[in-house]
Amino acid sequence: MTKITPVILSGGSGTRLWPLSVADRPKQFLALASDRSMFAETLARACDASRFGPALIIGAERHDALMETELGDAAFADARIILEPSARNTAPAIALAAIAAGSGDAVMLVMPSDHVIADLPAFLGAIDTALPAAQEGWLVTFGINPTGPETGFGYIHMAEPLADTPDVRKVARFIEKPPRDKAEAMLAQGDHAWNAGIFLMRADRYLEELAAHAPDMHRAAHSALDGVDLAARRIRPQPERFAACPSDSIDYAVMERATRVGIVPVSCGWSDVGSWDALAEIGAPDADGNTVSGEVIALDSRNNHIHADGITVTTSGIHDLIIIANSSHVMIVPKGRSQDVKAIAEALKARDKS
Amino acid sequence: MTKITPVILSGGSGTRLWPLSVADRPKQFLALASDRSMFAETLARACDASRFGPALIIGAERHDALMETELGDAAFADARIILEPSARNTAPAIALAAIAAGSGDAVMLVMPSDHVIADLPAFLGAIDTALPAAQEGWLVTFGINPTGPETGFGYIHMAEPLADTPDVRKVARFIEKPPRDKAEAMLAQGDHAWNAGIFLMRADRYLEELAAHAPDMHRAAHSALDGVDLAARRIRPQPERFAACPSDSIDYAVMERATRVGIVPVSCGWSDVGSWDALAEIGAPDADGNTVSGEVIALDSRNNHIHADGITVTTSGIHDLIIIANSSHVMIVPKGRSQDVKAIAEALKARDKS
Repeated sequence: MTKITPVILSGGSGTRLWPLSVADRPKQFLALASDRSMFAETLARACDASRFGPALIIGAERHDALMETELGDAAFADARIILEPSARNTAPAIALAAIAAGSGDAVMLVMPSDHVIADLPAFLGAIDTALPAAQEGWLVTFGINPTGPETGFGYIHMAEPLADTPDVRKVARFIEKPPRDKAEAMLAQGDHAWNAGIFLMRADRYLEELAAHAPDMHRAAHSALDGVDLAARRIRPQPERFAACPSDSIDYAVMERATRVGIVPVSCGWSDVGSWDALAEIGAPDADGNTVSGEVIALDSRNNHIHADGITVTTSGIHDLIIIANSSHVMIVPKGRSQDVKAIAEALKARDKS
Repeated sequence: MTKITPVILSGGSGTRLWPLSVADRPKQFLALASDRSMFAETLARACDASRFGPALIIGAERHDALMETELGDAAFADARIILEPSARNTAPAIALAAIAAGSGDAVMLVMPSDHVIADLPAFLGAIDTALPAAQEGWLVTFGINPTGPETGFGYIHMAEPLADTPDVRKVARFIEKPPRDKAEAMLAQGDHAWNAGIFLMRADRYLEELAAHAPDMHRAAHSALDGVDLAARRIRPQPERFAACPSDSIDYAVMERATRVGIVPVSCGWSDVGSWDALAEIGAPDADGNTVSGEVIALDSRNNHIHADGITVTTSGIHDLIIIANSSHVMIVPKGRSQDVKAIAEALKARDKS
């Protein structure tokens, strides 16, 4: 049986988990949802040798050492790292991986490195479901069965099942982050799933659709890897040529325009860990309802999310707060307001300038 | 005119302002109420050369370097530091100072080094009022006119004015920290003042009362300084002899038993800074009602007290909290609950042990 090539996207530099997530150590390299980083958890998700071949990782040059450390395990001795000389969003990154994947009919499992999947068997089951369709040339997305009218995710409208593989459905269309009422309507309808940015597809089919809908990108990706040793541990695209590549997401550049796009809906305890509130929701609360990690003393304190990294956080008599601290910054907001992190980071930047 | 000898008590190791106040740097050495430490503010309070002679400071050997740094100013070149080899509370400390003061009729202004006095002219005025009585042999306390039924202070019941100096009243008795109803009754009565632990008295009169009411202490203090150079910058009592001295406060050992104890009531913006709540009360609030010091970003946040020391504290959407942070600890409690610091410190100690 052909082995699936895990393609792990680690180019993100998310700041929504500030003050812990910073440019030098973005969220995928933090141990937030478990005692391993989300990058390590993502790697571990695709290390079953019966299904998966060696992984391809795509990340920023500046995180080379971090990635190497995470890969330390002998299980990943065959993994290759594509070091992006500049950030060009997901569509070009996946193009580099598709080219590096080698044989054209290699099947890639594309996964962001900073998501949580609590129910691995359910996720692997969905991959098994999707594999025949992917091998036949479908670009298969994994759609998360929605658990609420979230306005922070894109949605996928599912159409009829495929004839040959009825557990895979056709994608009717992709829907951008909706307003609340629209999210509620889609939830009620029952035929919409959250777009998790996880895909199973043949490398040649991806490149074919890319050539059709984003030819400049297709050309730039090939050009950037021309003459580069694709068998090396570290694959370094030619910087100027890659810099010339347009920047776009796989959703916009390919998925929304491609033919033969399918979806496997799944419930697998997925979270994009897009905010401290999201992290508070997936944590296991203690008897007082607090989700706590690091050195924390919480007396008479209820329903707080407290993360202490290299510092001790102590509280008494407080409730429903998000408290994040490391040895340089402390952030305190009420639960439900973790989006304020953006305003805080901006205020801090403005102060540092003045 | 005889100059008053400032006697500054710096032996305290208060932990009520944890996590900033720790054994190696107790509260008097912290810049909490202004940009100078309270120790430095206390020194500055008694540097007017028209009233005051060189200061005598009494502190712990372990804080020698801290005290020397605070004394750095040339204005205090003549100050002497009595380094206590062990902590024996205020009565023995003041006995050492009284002996070191030299001439028996020297008048000492005894002040804790960790209080705030916002209205210096009022305080100096009270000293001028008290001076004739002190010179005549009265042990004069300064009583703070109460602004509320505080249960955290001792009270002094004032009796009739002295015949010769009617602005000084006799002390009827000292009252320990009262329950709420008793505090309210004393406030209503109008003839009670808070005991601030600040005294003006002749050195010989103090030693005389000490000899009468705590002879062991009187003997041990003299013995500990026997043969010690009292003119040196650093006065080091003989450790074993001082260790043999009973430990007690000036209130219990002397004031409550002595004859000729007077009081000058004063309103001088006094605070013993006995808790983070006390500090929040004396701070100057910004437009949002926050009292803030250090690197703080407080967005949409009201009525908080935030102190950041070597770390940046950021908040959004919170109110009525006390937030204290340094690079090793963060403490968060609601306003009004700063006494919880004790339980927090104990919980932390218990955790460190296990």
